[in-house]
Amino acid sequence: MTFNKQAIRSSYVRPIDFKRGRVEMSHGGGGRAMTQLIETLFVSAFDNAMLSALNDQACFSPPTGRMVMSTDGYVISPLFFPGGDIGCLAVHGTLNDIAMAGAKPLYLSAGFILEEGFPLADLKRIVASMAAAAQAAGIQIVTGDTKVVERGKGDGIFITTTGVGSVPDGIEIAADRARPGDRVLVSGTLGDHGITILSLRENLGFHTEIESDTAALHDLVANMIAAVPAIKVLRDPTRGGLATILNEIALQSAVGIAIDEHQLPIREPVRAACEFLGFDPLYIANEGKLVAICPPEDADRLLETMRAHPLGQAAAIIGEVIEDPQCFVQMETAFGGRRIVDWLSGEQLPRIC
Amino acid sequence: MTFNKQAIRSSYVRPIDFKRGRVEMSHGGGGRAMTQLIETLFVSAFDNAMLSALNDQACFSPPTGRMVMSTDGYVISPLFFPGGDIGCLAVHGTLNDIAMAGAKPLYLSAGFILEEGFPLADLKRIVASMAAAAQAAGIQIVTGDTKVVERGKGDGIFITTTGVGSVPDGIEIAADRARPGDRVLVSGTLGDHGITILSLRENLGFHTEIESDTAALHDLVANMIAAVPAIKVLRDPTRGGLATILNEIALQSAVGIAIDEHQLPIREPVRAACEFLGFDPLYIANEGKLVAICPPEDADRLLETMRAHPLGQAAAIIGEVIEDPQCFVQMETAFGGRRIVDWLSGEQLPRIC
Repeated sequence: MTFNKQAIRSSYVRPIDFKRGRVEMSHGGGGRAMTQLIETLFVSAFDNAMLSALNDQACFSPPTGRMVMSTDGYVISPLFFPGGDIGCLAVHGTLNDIAMAGAKPLYLSAGFILEEGFPLADLKRIVASMAAAAQAAGIQIVTGDTKVVERGKGDGIFITTTGVGSVPDGIEIAADRARPGDRVLVSGTLGDHGITILSLRENLGFHTEIESDTAALHDLVANMIAAVPAIKVLRDPTRGGLATILNEIALQSAVGIAIDEHQLPIREPVRAACEFLGFDPLYIANEGKLVAICPPEDADRLLETMRAHPLGQAAAIIGEVIEDPQCFVQMETAFGGRRIVDWLSGEQLPRIC
Repeated sequence: MTFNKQAIRSSYVRPIDFKRGRVEMSHGGGGRAMTQLIETLFVSAFDNAMLSALNDQACFSPPTGRMVMSTDGYVISPLFFPGGDIGCLAVHGTLNDIAMAGAKPLYLSAGFILEEGFPLADLKRIVASMAAAAQAAGIQIVTGDTKVVERGKGDGIFITTTGVGSVPDGIEIAADRARPGDRVLVSGTLGDHGITILSLRENLGFHTEIESDTAALHDLVANMIAAVPAIKVLRDPTRGGLATILNEIALQSAVGIAIDEHQLPIREPVRAACEFLGFDPLYIANEGKLVAICPPEDADRLLETMRAHPLGQAAAIIGEVIEDPQCFVQMETAFGGRRIVDWLSGEQLPRIC
């Protein structure tokens, strides 16, 4: 690798002003300004040999086992929120999609769509947050892309990350594997992320008590798989919340799912905010939680394993898979009744991730 | 796979109106409207088992050889242009970045950021174009994501695609491998894509004569590698054009590059448009061309192989790699002079891809 950082650096006209500077159209133009931004910001923050080779692609050895690939776009507003920002969210969210196949995440790519005029200080903060999240998760951001659109044609920054990972042999996790009798578990409290964003957007003032749960779940998943290799389904209840992913699982597995409202872990301030605002926490997005479905005989061991992990301390068994040709999700309510937990029809909360 | 299409379909309230309908916020909300859009548009167009499993990730066997991964965002304006559209461009562009490592592209992911109000008919046309481009290239779009932002916070549609591919053992292609004496080739005429977009945007009226060269180059690359396994560098001269990528190669290989203006294949209408507009074709974007650098003894065989392929008919040897500690790219001009082909300083043409 003879990449000559010194030579590139000496060819820059002036250093980038990361304090007061803003994104300019030239930062997406393919010329010196773009190279300078990539070299001084992204390559430096995501520091790894593949990225600093400055090829248009990363090259690595294929993993053993099966491979998984997942992509997600991040358009969250606001960009910064209690508990995180669009940067760490863009790392955690895609890592989690990889982990939900029972896979170990390996590499990430990151594509940035920047709006002209976006403060470079914010960009730097977001990139630093991505780098920290990647490092904490033990994965590398190995290739990327930057585009700039004119003022008014974007909204500050959009990030699309794509991850690849590998699934150990013998692990078969997919949304169509739930069977009647299986138990349904969640890894922790519901609705923290969505209510945090909502409270910021609506300026409701209770955001001091709640923060986003954004977190990378692959380490928790690795522990869970080690303890219970027979886990059948893993899903992270992001957009659309618990209700949506349970409906997806029910449909794909051609089963019904019955949950018990008593068992749902929900923080008191989240419950209060939902009541105040008329939202149902079942539909609120999470960014650091997972739903697991496993055979009944493994449920207690799985629960114990989850609770032993920092990200699963509030884990709970919330219900079971039942026979139902109509694939309904139903809930025994706190008042002893029973109701259908339907698909979300419209948009509950836009730009939540 | 027990994915129950019938059950999902029967749960839709009403069919999507792909003629007069528009993107609504609910299409990104994670609920029924989003599932309906994904199922009736994307899964149907990109038809393959991995995507229709509707998991949040695709799962496949790892390839042999080394793996490559590349990502690119597409923000081109206008979305439709002579010779292509943002859809096929988003497939070709990322395939080409994979191919430039000498790799065979295998799988693509696609992330969509849609603006509320974007006509569904346009979305359908773009998705169909992506599907056709993927099929023609022999690759699958195996996983994806859709986000919707409010009207005025985006610009119709942005697409980020990420590709993975595999490099045959023994092939070592990278931008730092050029050495003095090596020959520099291009696969065809320069500037077609950029001038097409420019003419549309400025309404210059000569766009009937020129069309974008957007194309997938991996088949051409496979032929080239089969004929000349010793190819050292491959790059596609997109944003920033030939001048930019030659400067990048010179810097990364710590060499100079000398090209001959006489040898540059440029269509007459492109040359005329550049003269009229004051643009230098060396800096204009291409979307279906590549630059190759190979040892001198292989140059004629490589040229012959390229010319035998439909996408390389106008290929030419345009120069050679020279010793130069300053890593300059220089050109012998048509008038017999010599000039430095410098880095592009700003933005020549925004949103060209």
